Order: sequence, then C-alpha cells, then structure tokens
Amino acid sequence: MQLGMIGLGKMGGNMAARLREKGHEVVGYDVTSPERDVDTLAGLVERLAAPRVVWVMVPAGEPTAATIAELGELMDEGDLVIEGGNSHYADDRVRAKALAEKGVGYLDAGVSGGVWGRQNGYGIMVGGPAEDVEKARPIFDSLVPDEGVGFVHAGAVGAGHFVKMVHNGIEYGMMQAFGEGYELMVASGLVDDVPGTFESWREGTVVRSWLLDLLSRALEEDPELSRLRGYAEDSGEGRWTVQAAVDLAVPAPAITSSLYARFASRQDDSPAMKVVAALRNQFGGHAVHRAETSDDIDV
Amino acid sequence: MQLGMIGLGKMGGNMAARLREKGHEVVGYDVTSPERDVDTLAGLVERLAAPRVVWVMVPAGEPTAATIAELGELMDEGDLVIEGGNSHYADDRVRAKALAEKGVGYLDAGVSGGVWGRQNGYGIMVGGPAEDVEKARPIFDSLVPDEGVGFVHAGAVGAGHFVKMVHNGIEYGMMQAFGEGYELMVASGLVDDVPGTFESWREGTVVRSWLLDLLSRALEEDPELSRLRGYAEDSGEGRWTVQAAVDLAVPAPAITSSLYARFASRQDDSPAMKVVAALRNQFGGHAVHRAETSDDIDV
Amino acid sequence: MQLGMIGLGKMGGNMAARLREKGHEVVGYDVTSPERDVDTLAGLVERLAAPRVVWVMVPAGEPTAATIAELGELMDEGDLVIEGGNSHYADDRVRAKALAEKGVGYLDAGVSGGVWGRQNGYGIMVGGPAEDVEKARPIFDSLVPDEGVGFVHAGAVGAGHFVKMVHNGIEYGMMQAFGEGYELMVASGLVDDVPGTFESWREGTVVRSWLLDLLSRALEEDPELSRLRGYAEDSGEGRWTVQAAVDLAVPAPAITSSLYARFASRQDDSPAMKVVAALRNQFGGHAVHRAETSDDIDV
Amino acid sequence: MQLGMIGLGKMGGNMAARLREKGHEVVGYDVTSPERDVDTLAGLVERLAAPRVVWVMVPAGEPTAATIAELGELMDEGDLVIEGGNSHYADDRVRAKALAEKGVGYLDAGVSGGVWGRQNGYGIMVGGPAEDVEKARPIFDSLVPDEGVGFVHAGAVGAGHFVKMVHNGIEYGMMQAFGEGYELMVASGLVDDVPGTFESWREGTVVRSWLLDLLSRALEEDPELSRLRGYAEDSGEGRWTVQAAVDLAVPAPAITSSLYARFASRQDDSPAMKVVAALRNQFGGHAVHRAETSDDIDV
Repeated sequence: MQLGMIGLGKMGGNMAARLREKGHEVVGYDVTSPERDVDTLAGLVERLAAPRVVWVMVPAGEPTAATIAELGELMDEGDLVIEGGNSHYADDRVRAKALAEKGVGYLDAGVSGGVWGRQNGYGIMVGGPAEDVEKARPIFDSLVPDEGVGFVHAGAVGAGHFVKMVHNGIEYGMMQAFGEGYELMVASGLVDDVPGTFESWREGTVVRSWLLDLLSRALEEDPELSRLRGYAEDSGEGRWTVQAAVDLAVPAPAITSSLYARFASRQDDSPAMKVVAALRNQFGGHAVHRAETSDDIDV
Repeated sequence: MQLGMIGLGKMGGNMAARLREKGHEVVGYDVTSPERDVDTLAGLVERLAAPRVVWVMVPAGEPTAATIAELGELMDEGDLVIEGGNSHYADDRVRAKALAEKGVGYLDAGVSGGVWGRQNGYGIMVGGPAEDVEKARPIFDSLVPDEGVGFVHAGAVGAGHFVKMVHNGIEYGMMQAFGEGYELMVASGLVDDVPGTFESWREGTVVRSWLLDLLSRALEEDPELSRLRGYAEDSGEGRWTVQAAVDLAVPAPAITSSLYARFASRQDDSPAMKVVAALRNQFGGHAVHRAETSDDIDV
Repeated sequence: MQLGMIGLGKMGGNMAARLREKGHEVVGYDVTSPERDVDTLAGLVERLAAPRVVWVMVPAGEPTAATIAELGELMDEGDLVIEGGNSHYADDRVRAKALAEKGVGYLDAGVSGGVWGRQNGYGIMVGGPAEDVEKARPIFDSLVPDEGVGFVHAGAVGAGHFVKMVHNGIEYGMMQAFGEGYELMVASGLVDDVPGTFESWREGTVVRSWLLDLLSRALEEDPELSRLRGYAEDSGEGRWTVQAAVDLAVPAPAITSSLYARFASRQDDSPAMKVVAALRNQFGGHAVHRAETSDDIDV
Repeated sequence: MQLGMIGLGKMGGNMAARLREKGHEVVGYDVTSPERDVDTLAGLVERLAAPRVVWVMVPAGEPTAATIAELGELMDEGDLVIEGGNSHYADDRVRAKALAEKGVGYLDAGVSGGVWGRQNGYGIMVGGPAEDVEKARPIFDSLVPDEGVGFVHAGAVGAGHFVKMVHNGIEYGMMQAFGEGYELMVASGLVDDVPGTFESWREGTVVRSWLLDLLSRALEEDPELSRLRGYAEDSGEGRWTVQAAVDLAVPAPAITSSLYARFASRQDDSPAMKVVAALRNQFGGHAVHRAETSDDIDV
C-alpha cells in the first residue's frame, strides 16, 4: 500500500527501506535528509492519495508535536496518522482528540528493534481503534519479523506507547541485571574467562536472550570493555516507566534501581554522598579532624 | 565414555538419559529412585573402571557434602568428582582440597536449563584444572545443546559455581523486571491484551528471551495468572549473589531488590511496615486516636 | 496581628489556637466546623481589615485549589494568601501567577509537626517574595517552637512546598530504616528486649531523633505492635519526591524504596510476584507440575 | 569500681577519661599510646584485683580476636571480659564459649556516640548473662548519658553487637535519606537557602534528630560542602546488617541501597554501567557507530 514516512533517520529510513523491499510505495520526507522524496510536509500530503496514511518517525517531544500539529492542518477527514516515535502515552490521547475533531485518525505505534530491525523485522505495539489498525495492517505485517508475530493491538489510543514504555522499562532492568552480573564476575577475581562465560550462556541457559547475544558480541570486540566508560544515558522511557509506577502505586524496585544506576553513572561527584561524608566527618568531632581509624567511625 | 551419576531426580535423571542417548555408559545411583543401577555408593564406585568419573547431582547442602565426603573415602588417586549441584563456590574449594590430599580430582559444574535441558541441552559452567576438564570433556560436549556452544571453563575450582550463581542472580533480575512490567500493564487499565503484548515481544524486540517465551506460555495457559498466588520462594543462589555483592563491594540494586521482593511476597504481615504504621499513628497524637484526614498525616 | 484561617481541622484548628494564645486575632472559617467564626469565605474576607492575610489550611488537591480560586475573586490588591497545606510546588507557581494579576500576594508554607505542633511549635518553610514574608512574619514567629528557630525562607514561590516535600521524603526514608531495623531484631530471635533497645537509643546514640522517641512510645503502648497491621498508606508527598528525583535525575534509592515498601504493604497479592511464580513453575516443565525439590528450580 | 581498659584510641581513651571523672579506677593499656598505665597485657591483668573486669576497645577483626585470645590465657575463673568494639555477633558466641571453658565471663557491648560520647555519654547495648551484666553495672551507669537511660541489656551473648549492628544499619538509612534530600534541593535550583532549610528543621519537624544537628553544623562550616568529595567508606557494620537481612529473609531495601550508594561512590568507573553502555552501543548496529540521536536508542 501507499505510505507517507516522515523522518528518515536510522529508524524511519530503515523502516521505509524494509517496506519498499516488501512492495509498498513509500513517500519519504525529512527536514534534512537528501533521501527525501518531497521537500515539504505539504508536498508529502499532496503526493499521497486520499485516504492517506502517514507514519511519523521523528525525535520525541517538540519535533513530534510540531509535526503532528502541522499534519492536523494539512490532512483531511478519513486520513490516518501513525505516531511511531517515543511519545508519552498521555500525549497520544491529547493528539488523537485534536485530530479527531477534523476526522483524522490516530494510532500510536511503539516500535522496537533498533537498526537491526531492517533485516530482522520490528516489534510493533499499537494503540487505537480497531478499524484504523485494519487500515494500516499491510504496513504492520511488513514491518514485523514474520506475518503473525511481533505485533500486538494492545488497546485504545495510548496503549501502544504505554506497552512500548513498559517494554523499555523491562529492558532497563535486564540490562542492569547483566551489568551487575558482569561486575560481580570481574570483581571476584575468580573468573578467568568472562567473555566466554557470557558466550556460553547463549544456549541452554535461563538467561539466554537477545541482550545476552549483544553483550557477548560487545565482549568479543572489546573483552574488558576498556574502550567504554561506565556512563549511561537514559532516554525518557525509563523515567516514564518509573513515573507510571509511582502514579499507579506499583512497586517497581528493579526497574527503578536500573534508572538510578544510570543517573549515578553520570555524576562526577554525588551531592548525596557528600552529605554522608560530611556526617562521617562530624562523628569524628570537628570537621577539621578527619576520622582516621575504624574505631572512630562505627559510632 | 563411562560416568557414574549420583542423584537421579529431575536434573540428574534427565542428564543421565541425555548422556545415554548420546552413547555414553551411565551407571546411576540414587538414595531412593527405583531407576538406580547400583544400590550403594560403594557399589557405584566398584562398578566403574578406574580412573573413575562421578557426577554428583543431589540436593545442595548436607546431602551434597555427605556424598562428596563418602566419595572421598571410596575413590582412588586419579579419579574425578564433578559436583554439578548448586554448591557455594567457597565450599568447592574446601572439598577440592580435601579430595586432592588423596589424589582425587574435583570439578565444580554449574548446570542451567531445568527440565527442558534433556531435549534442549544444558548450559554448563565449569571450574577446576584444565586437565580434569579434558578428562570429562566428552560428557560436557554431550550435555550442551550443540558441541561448541553452551560450555565454559570459567576458571579454577569454584569458578563454575560462582558464574552459575551469578547467572541465577541475573535471572532473578530479569524475572523481576518482567514481573514489574506485567504489573504496570495490569494496573494501568490501558492494556486490553496483556498476554498478546508479551507474545508480540517474542520476535523483533529488545526483550526477547527464553524467559519471555516461558512467560508467554504461562499467560497462554492462564491469561490472568489467576491460578497462582504472588508468592515466590528463593533458592539460595540469589542470596549468595547478594552476599557476594556485599563482600566484593559491588552495588547490585536490581538483583537485590528482586530477592527482597521475593522475601516480601512471603510475608503475611510485615513487621517493618507495622513500624511505619505505628509512627504514622503517633503523628496523630495519641495512639488511640487514629489519624483520619490527610492533613494530620503529612507532617 | 490579624489573620484569617481557612480550615479548622487538626492542623488549622491547632494553629489558630496557638496563634490566639500568642496574642493574635484569628478569624476562623471552615466548611463544617462549629468552631468557625464566620459562615462563608466571603464573610471571612469581609471581617478582615485590608490589607488582609489569609492562611489556607484545607485538604490538598481540589479543596485547596477551589478555596484559592474563590479567594482570588474575593480579595483585593495588597492582600496576601498563605497556602499552608500540602500543595505541589508546581501548583504554587500557577496560583501565585493567577493571584498576582489581581495584585494579591501568595506565599507557600510547608508546615511540619502534626498535632504535637500546638504545644511544641511547628517547623515552617516558606516560599515567595521577601516583602510578603515580612508581612506575615509575626505569624511565623508565633508558630515556630521559639523565635529564631524552626523557620526558613527557602526561596521563591514553590520553594516552601518543595522543601516540605523533601522533608517528607526524608521522613519516609527514616521511618523505613527504623522499620527494617525493627524487623531484623524481631526476625533474629536474638533480641529479648526490642522495646528496651529502641528506648535505650534515645540518648547518646547516633540515631536519636524524634521519630525514635515516637517509636519508643508506640512500643511502650504495644510492645509487639500486635494491634497493628503492616499496612501503610502514603500521602502524596513521597510520590512527589520520587517524581522530582526522576525529573531531576537524582538517584534517590532509599526514599524510593521506602515508598515502594508502602505500596507493597497494601497489596493482598502481587501481580509481579505472580509472574515470578509462573516463571518458576515453567522451569519445572509443564505448569501443572509444580516444582518440588530444589534441584528443579535452581536452573 | 576498678576496670582494665585495653585500647586508648578515640573511643577507649575517651571512655576511660569519662569513667575516671565519674570516680572509677581505670588501668589503661594500649599497644602504642604513651598514656598507657601498663606496658603489657600481662601487666594489666596483674595490676587488677580479682575478680577482674576488662574492657576491650581495639580495632575490630584480628586485633580484637588476638587480644581476647591472649586475655583467655591470662585471666582466671570469675574474671570478666567486655568486648566493646565492633565485633560480629557470631564471633561473640565463639569467644564466649572459649572463655567459658576457663570460667571467664564474656559480655558484648555495642557502644554508640563517637567522640561526642565523652561529654554527652554513650549509648550502650549489652549481650550476655544477667549476672555478668550486674558485675559491670557501675561502669555502664557511668558511660551512659544519665543513669537509667542509654542502656539496654538486649539478650544473650551476641545480642549487644547485633543490636549495635542494626543501629548502624538504621544510621546508614538515615544518612542516605538526608543525602538524597540534600541532593534534591541542590538539583532543583529552587532552594536559595539549603543550609538554612536544614537548620530550620532542627526544631518542630518530624525529621529532627542528632544527625540533622550534625548536618546543619557541617553546612554551617561549609555551606556547599565544597571541601568534600562525594566519597563514602563503609565500616563493616552496614555490610553485616545486609548479610543478616539476607540470612533472615528480611527485606531491607532502604538500608541496602544506602550501602550500595557508598559502594558506588567509591568507583571511578562502574563495570556494570560499562555493560549498559556497551549494550546501548550495540543497539546502534556496529560498535564503531555510536548511537547519536534518540531515535536509535529507544529501541
């Protein structure tokens, strides 16, 4: 079928390529990419036959919001917007409502798989009305690894991004668990072959997983991870997961501690731990006298 | 090759069966199982040709300790004991030393895969001297899913059980992450198809993994997990992982919070939370006057 | 000085009483309390001499929002509203801006001390312009335990409630730490005199604190806390603290785990732990066969 | 009464001074201190009149073990050893048993208060037989802040150090909670007067405590804690508390996360976070291509 793809970065560009390989007609637009087929959003809408289906795959936040607002101006009743970026599920509901006033449909689609998705296929999680899902079904079927797998219509508008957010929260927890396991092995001094241990786990064990495959691959390239710093960004989805946990009164200690470990990894110096250090100094009497032996400190 | 297998439960019995299918001669012994080939440990040792290789696969703790002590009495120089249960890595070193005095070798082998291992193969992680590992190589090669995968010689004695322990610690973290994700979806009221969401993640996503496969299978059988209580045992390996983290000064918050979540799941009533409740009552003035409105409490 | 007090519950009522004892003229209003001096908000505003100072001490959320909106209608340029409840600091800024359009000032005041405050005095943390703080200074001076202590002008509008929120977050962590310590003592079976231990800590130790005093008092009344369930509400401030931590990328594991422990204490059955239980069952092969021995489980 | 004091460092020396001020006869011994009254342990035992009472206040671990072993050689039936350092409660039981064979009594005494104890008095928590506690009662009564407070006979041998350990675990949680609160205030950019806020909390609030007094004092001396690094040691007691929690199946997330925060504060680079970083790189395809935009990363 025909699809407009807005955003031709690593995600949107690869998805467009995969869809074309599967026989779809994709008209691509991007603010800067030379690979775009049209030069403006208006041009994109013009090029598509009504009822149009447009997939938005631009950075989360302001760019996505602005793109969808502009599409709302340009599109007509019966058209459909699929927001495939990492929007917050609450924003989806606001946008869907705004577009609905003009008769334009809205689906939120969480997409997992990274740059590997072009060859392996993507996991796709969609929220929105069933009839809109059906309109875009051929697109979803070509994005997933194989027809019938890797797709879920999770619920009403917002449900797609909600479950994608949860997916990423789980991912945080899994990554942290592997990280902690790695550090334990390294710190123990007992394990002569850490990369080989992870490699061996790829078959037969309980922890076998794609993340383990990736970790094993990373350790093959850099057995002591010496080219990396222990510094990890977070991308917003982890924060949203924790905020949802707090809002819903769901205890989520593993996911939350994974997020906090990333926060801590980015600190040169921790103000909280300065307080702990300051208090330990105070136990010693005067701040100018730093405590020297264990018997001053275990107060 | 010839192998003595002590313990013919779900793990040992299945391993013996797999080894026999692969052409090994396994002489099995078990305290109670009718499928044993010999009636005593002494009988087992007698039946095996020297130099003997004996795999111990009995419950951790006292049964394993007693079995290995008795083997130490019965076996001769050049024989080899492989402890395949869930021993603590520190115990391995003590046992290896004791057996070494008599010239009996010792390998510790962590085994992962559960009852699925018979058909899928097992992950095997071994600690001990390289020459002893070579003696038992044909056995390891037949236990793993395919030759060349699923096996690691992790280091000296104790390293096999250490990495198996870490493997289980990571497993705790992964299971908890999936649990938290599930609870978030259920609590949100937004997700109409929770089982379908997990099922969809099995292909193309970052969290695809054997645990996810199992979870999807469990949700197929019982979509709301209504036949289960939120009550989880822990098996010792998780505790050891946390204790190792503390000993090694490795922050392991995700694994630890997974263990603590299991502890909490088994409490009918939490003494710690009684204290919190008692303090909240105290804020209200006299304990007999329970605080009634939010303005008393947010003190 | 003259003050209007809106809300005569345990907090507002006691504060009014303390202020009157200190010689202030307090005109009280409450939706239901028979102790109110005027019957309507309009009546309250009418009774006060301009420029008026009104303290709002009603339940957080809708009641506070509605009260302040109505005051905005009724009050005049030069008047001052002090919001003393548990508002979110972001709401303070919105309200202050709205009132400022009419020339009405706004201070946010976090108040700590509970019902004990009437006799002990309250901790008061204020946000807003310095000149407005000065207008209400006599009131603040009479609410605190002693002139010169227990008061801070923390910053601009919102800062008062922000630091009160942080105060409560710290309080969560302290309460949880005492709870964990209590449970450790009880679970150990080693400590014959748990109430006496807490009592002994009240002097000379590092953990001496008002919360410890309260805990000791609670244990005196009910040495095994047998009259309480391990069930703890949370009041919103703890959630806000965690959300602020996430927004600000501040790792706050102790406060967060305290909040999560309260969440968990209120669950009859944990969906997350059902997932863990379901996965453990799956290791055993078929869900109908529950794993029975440790050797199936430590996979 | 007469007491032998072994170890005249900041703790033992101050305690000896306080006891002398209260009229006791203290004979002091220390490996190096010029303030010692005798030059050898044997000399100390000789100088004391039987039945002797000796307080051991030397660094935990080997020095304490060696001192008590030597005392076991030197002392006679009816004598009493009080171990006042930070021993593990399990070691107390072993030592008490060994001394009992010779008829020498043993008490374990947890001591809290740091260098402030000389003037304020110490918190004292004792484990052992009641009759031995009575023998040393005059000493305990002089060490506590005031007769009748600050002392508990917590239970049998080991109970004193167990509750001291729990006390320190709680202390870790409280310190961490204050640290997190401090960091939130600093990170918010909303709070103009952070030291003043802590100072204001010292009266009237729920979090008022000796640790808050110390923190306020530290902030008075160094308002931005700029002379300190966010680096905190741990002293063993926190680790033991977590290990006890794991052994006893007590969820202790607040105390544990406080310990882990100290571990993390001492790492220049976190191996665990290298794994997280490595995995994030892998999402981007090849490790040589670092992910650049949010759309590659939120996979």
